Amino acid sequence: MIKYIAGDYDLIVIGAGHAGCEAALAASRMGIKTLICTMNLDSIAMMPCNPNVGGTAKGHLVREIDALGGEMGVNIDYTFIQSKMLNLSKGPAVHSLRAQADKRRYSQRMKEVLENQNNLYIKQIEVTSIDFENGAVKGILTKNGAYFSCKCIVLSTGTYLRSRIIIGEVNYSGGPSGLATANELSQSLIDQNVILRRFKTGTPARINRRSIDESKMIEQPGDKKIVPFSFISANIDRNQILCYLTYTNEETHKIIKENIDRSPLYNGSIKSVGPRYCPSIEDKVMRFPDKNQHQVFIEPEGENTNEMYVGGMSSSLPEEVQLQMIRTVKGLENAEILRTAYAIEYDCIDPTQLKLSLEFKDIDGLFGAGQLNGSSGYEEAACQGLIAGINAALKIQNKNPLILKRSDAYIGVLIDDLVTKGTNEPYRMMTSRAEYRLLLRQDNADLRLTEIGRSIGLVSDFRYERFKFRRDSIEKEIDRLKRVQITNKKENNDFLESLGSSTLKKPISLYELIKRPELDYNMVKKLDLERTDLSDDIIDEVNIATKYEGYIIKQLEQVEQFKKFENRHIPEKIDYHEVKGIRIEAIQKLDKMRPVSIGQASRISGVSPADISVLMIYLEQYFRKMSI
Amino acid sequence: MIKYIAGDYDLIVIGAGHAGCEAALAASRMGIKTLICTMNLDSIAMMPCNPNVGGTAKGHLVREIDALGGEMGVNIDYTFIQSKMLNLSKGPAVHSLRAQADKRRYSQRMKEVLENQNNLYIKQIEVTSIDFENGAVKGILTKNGAYFSCKCIVLSTGTYLRSRIIIGEVNYSGGPSGLATANELSQSLIDQNVILRRFKTGTPARINRRSIDESKMIEQPGDKKIVPFSFISANIDRNQILCYLTYTNEETHKIIKENIDRSPLYNGSIKSVGPRYCPSIEDKVMRFPDKNQHQVFIEPEGENTNEMYVGGMSSSLPEEVQLQMIRTVKGLENAEILRTAYAIEYDCIDPTQLKLSLEFKDIDGLFGAGQLNGSSGYEEAACQGLIAGINAALKIQNKNPLILKRSDAYIGVLIDDLVTKGTNEPYRMMTSRAEYRLLLRQDNADLRLTEIGRSIGLVSDFRYERFKFRRDSIEKEIDRLKRVQITNKKENNDFLESLGSSTLKKPISLYELIKRPELDYNMVKKLDLERTDLSDDIIDEVNIATKYEGYIIKQLEQVEQFKKFENRHIPEKIDYHEVKGIRIEAIQKLDKMRPVSIGQASRISGVSPADISVLMIYLEQYFRKMSI
Repeated sequence: MIKYIAGDYDLIVIGAGHAGCEAALAASRMGIKTLICTMNLDSIAMMPCNPNVGGTAKGHLVREIDALGGEMGVNIDYTFIQSKMLNLSKGPAVHSLRAQADKRRYSQRMKEVLENQNNLYIKQIEVTSIDFENGAVKGILTKNGAYFSCKCIVLSTGTYLRSRIIIGEVNYSGGPSGLATANELSQSLIDQNVILRRFKTGTPARINRRSIDESKMIEQPGDKKIVPFSFISANIDRNQILCYLTYTNEETHKIIKENIDRSPLYNGSIKSVGPRYCPSIEDKVMRFPDKNQHQVFIEPEGENTNEMYVGGMSSSLPEEVQLQMIRTVKGLENAEILRTAYAIEYDCIDPTQLKLSLEFKDIDGLFGAGQLNGSSGYEEAACQGLIAGINAALKIQNKNPLILKRSDAYIGVLIDDLVTKGTNEPYRMMTSRAEYRLLLRQDNADLRLTEIGRSIGLVSDFRYERFKFRRDSIEKEIDRLKRVQITNKKENNDFLESLGSSTLKKPISLYELIKRPELDYNMVKKLDLERTDLSDDIIDEVNIATKYEGYIIKQLEQVEQFKKFENRHIPEKIDYHEVKGIRIEAIQKLDKMRPVSIGQASRISGVSPADISVLMIYLEQYFRKMSI
Repeated sequence: MIKYIAGDYDLIVIGAGHAGCEAALAASRMGIKTLICTMNLDSIAMMPCNPNVGGTAKGHLVREIDALGGEMGVNIDYTFIQSKMLNLSKGPAVHSLRAQADKRRYSQRMKEVLENQNNLYIKQIEVTSIDFENGAVKGILTKNGAYFSCKCIVLSTGTYLRSRIIIGEVNYSGGPSGLATANELSQSLIDQNVILRRFKTGTPARINRRSIDESKMIEQPGDKKIVPFSFISANIDRNQILCYLTYTNEETHKIIKENIDRSPLYNGSIKSVGPRYCPSIEDKVMRFPDKNQHQVFIEPEGENTNEMYVGGMSSSLPEEVQLQMIRTVKGLENAEILRTAYAIEYDCIDPTQLKLSLEFKDIDGLFGAGQLNGSSGYEEAACQGLIAGINAALKIQNKNPLILKRSDAYIGVLIDDLVTKGTNEPYRMMTSRAEYRLLLRQDNADLRLTEIGRSIGLVSDFRYERFKFRRDSIEKEIDRLKRVQITNKKENNDFLESLGSSTLKKPISLYELIKRPELDYNMVKKLDLERTDLSDDIIDEVNIATKYEGYIIKQLEQVEQFKKFENRHIPEKIDYHEVKGIRIEAIQKLDKMRPVSIGQASRISGVSPADISVLMIYLEQYFRKMSI
């Protein structure tokens, strides 16, 4: 019930997790008067699950968020306690940065950033309903009876909507990590015909460091040379903590199998869908019966705490089974559980109800971001929050939305996947989802996205100058490599032979020389007399551009082809029932999904290539008619 | 419902606030296998209200907790951001230390201490019921179905039991500071005939530092020379933050008066009782209609946050009235509220159900501590937690409980007040409550209590050595002052004259000289040729002992008198109905309260001095009969 009119904002962000924080910061930095609401000011940017940021594909997202002017990369650079570049033995497309966070510090610093942001207002309130008028958002109502009017809303409610905690046979209403749930807000979405679903996710137990035997586990140190997440972070030299690797074993699996009928997800008492690529330990054991061990990573939750995260053992088995199974693991024989593992079930939406801008198709001014949209993971949430915040701001500014293509960024892939293909389980980013992944590397996120961030107004002068310097240095160096000729004199050939590389018959550019598989930029230094010192990140870029030139060109051609279809615009008012020759299923899907381009239409499940051909012919005629 | 048997502990502490932390640490340090349960590991030792520790009388409690080997003093020394000795213009009995805490750091460090404590186990679980058998505790049951057996329980549930948030006309189920409430546990107390009551307390709004004008307010700096809380802390040199003082005014009061019928505590819709000595701003305005201003202290909630506590303006007025009234205050004209002020109503007990050991009279092994017992304040909670933890441990060790007398410590006064007199409102410590306050100073808490803490096993060798050194140094110096004779030679008399003190006719000891009101230990240095350098805290002690000797002796005599009655033991099995000549009311009260001594009996409200005289005669006869 409305008790009083509390104020007017351009944008209201509901929820201050990883999505909400990015949304609110982006919009307020773009000059939009923004209110961010959280049920608990002490849990801003909380990490209720794993204590790290980044990882395979997720590291790419953080880099992209950073290049666009988001906060996640900067925040983790300030607060990490271990940093590691993953997959270095593989190609550069899958190199991924991951950092262990000090959870409390991560949350505390993000809160500090919000508190200090111009145009941004923070309130600890529970939003109980959204006020709609004629299919558009108008304001929100809080539990204390305050009514705030607004032009746009970003919904980033994470796992808080009507959440239930599930531990074995026990389940009860409750939010993540011992916090309260939000039971009222869902109803106003239902009233607006938003289709809600129930997803679930889970987290492993936390154990006390004093109860484990680290000497029985394999140390997992950070990198000696730290690569920061943010393109604006200076070099970081920091004491790093150790993580530990251990394994489940036959005994662990026996306990799980014996108790599998007590798992609410296996005995059918809970039907919501969990993340396939972040499975519980019982899922792993049941799905891969031949594997006799699974990795378990023991990771500190911060520098000044004994809480250790038991990575790889998320579970919704009963509490006593959890303790039994954990204590079978080497090094954890005497583990004391501080927090029990649990699954949490929550309301989220079918993301195909969204446009690529993350605005609801049928509700003007309402944007969705993060787990609400059916994703999983802090980074997936943060990048959606950023885009939703940007697009809400652009809408308020009467500008066109920012749509990142699948060829622009992992963020583009993620949003297109969610919005166009939909998802039946919590969606997690993976490198395999990005078809142009040789272009969409973590190392070149700034080269791909800084200009976009700048044009929106999120890239500071400092960031932009740094970006231009890096971009120009790379280009200049590549040009120089193309110009420098290495002659076939004996001295040069002797050197090449010493590197196991074949000798030169005629002069060749350094650029061509570096392409040889056995060589790289640093190795040929001796031949490169004009070379000046460049930073490692620039050298990496030059190396990749040179050595992978062939593949990159090929992928760029594919992108050109892809863009042709993306640019074939489908008018909004088209009536698919008039398109003769398309199958009924495709008509229904297209009608429901309303794709903006032939490209997007082609990715809708249930729409065949034949349907697309028919549609393209129809559109040609349609446009011809229009132009007459 | 019990799902499984989860373990056995000697002691289980329910709640990890200021009381629970001290209880759990004390018992585990005494070698007791202890489990501490909290609904949220991230809110251990949370400060949901004011961001400081200590203050008038409360500072005494912290010093006493420290002297006994508790943690609060050490923890605030590690984490304070401003320190101040209050009331220095008054006598030493009321000098009180107060420190501004960095709330997050305070909580984080206390959690770290718990995590690292031997014999102590921590679990994030909600206790839903206590298992009793034959009037004794047997175990607890958690929301996840775990059953833990135990010998003793310390209940320190703070404001979490069936708590309701109250803001104007709005009220709903909810714990403090946006956290969840515990709705189930109360029932098992009711089932054991524990008398529950509803108390309420409140907290002011938090506002964003960026929205206030500090230049319009009066700066409140910390002390130049910092006195640590803990007797084992080394000298502390730390950058200190500023607090600010401002005032309400006629306009503020007008708004409050106009809206007073919307206050749930004034319009009768809420009937629970709030703390008299920590009143809401509407209470102050209504109770003191002649005052045209009240102090408002603006205090940072930490070093790395913009959240500012609006001290002095706690309120349960509607949200919009809060904002209106805050914005009338100088410097707060544009204040942005981050957290709304609220009152919280919760289940607590009638503390006269407890023994002086804090064990329930009728439930063997169940101890109560903190707000559950009807107190208010972090320090009041902590000291009860310490005593409850100690006494649970002593009980498990089959030892006699630790009962601090009113002449031993403020802690003794507090517990005796609660248990013997009871309280009809949240009880707050004040210097006026301590009849022997010249003896119970904050500066001599170690001299009063370290030996007691040592005998229990809570005082480390390090602390004990420090204590002995300090105690011996003070004694030696006082002895020396008594020995050193100052002659009446001209040089000495000239010096005394220069200090405005009368000249000597005959030699006098330095001790006697220092007693002169216009002199003190430091001033007469020039006359004291053998003097060696002593630390300030030792000099203070010497000064006080010397200058206040007369008063101290008088108070010690009173204590002797007091102890006579305290030591007149009343046998437990006495039948007051057999005592002829006592009034009916007194019989009922005595029968219900079962005092352990004549002294305690005399403080029960409704028992008159005449009743006591009759009782004493009866007891004399009783003992005479017994000894035949």
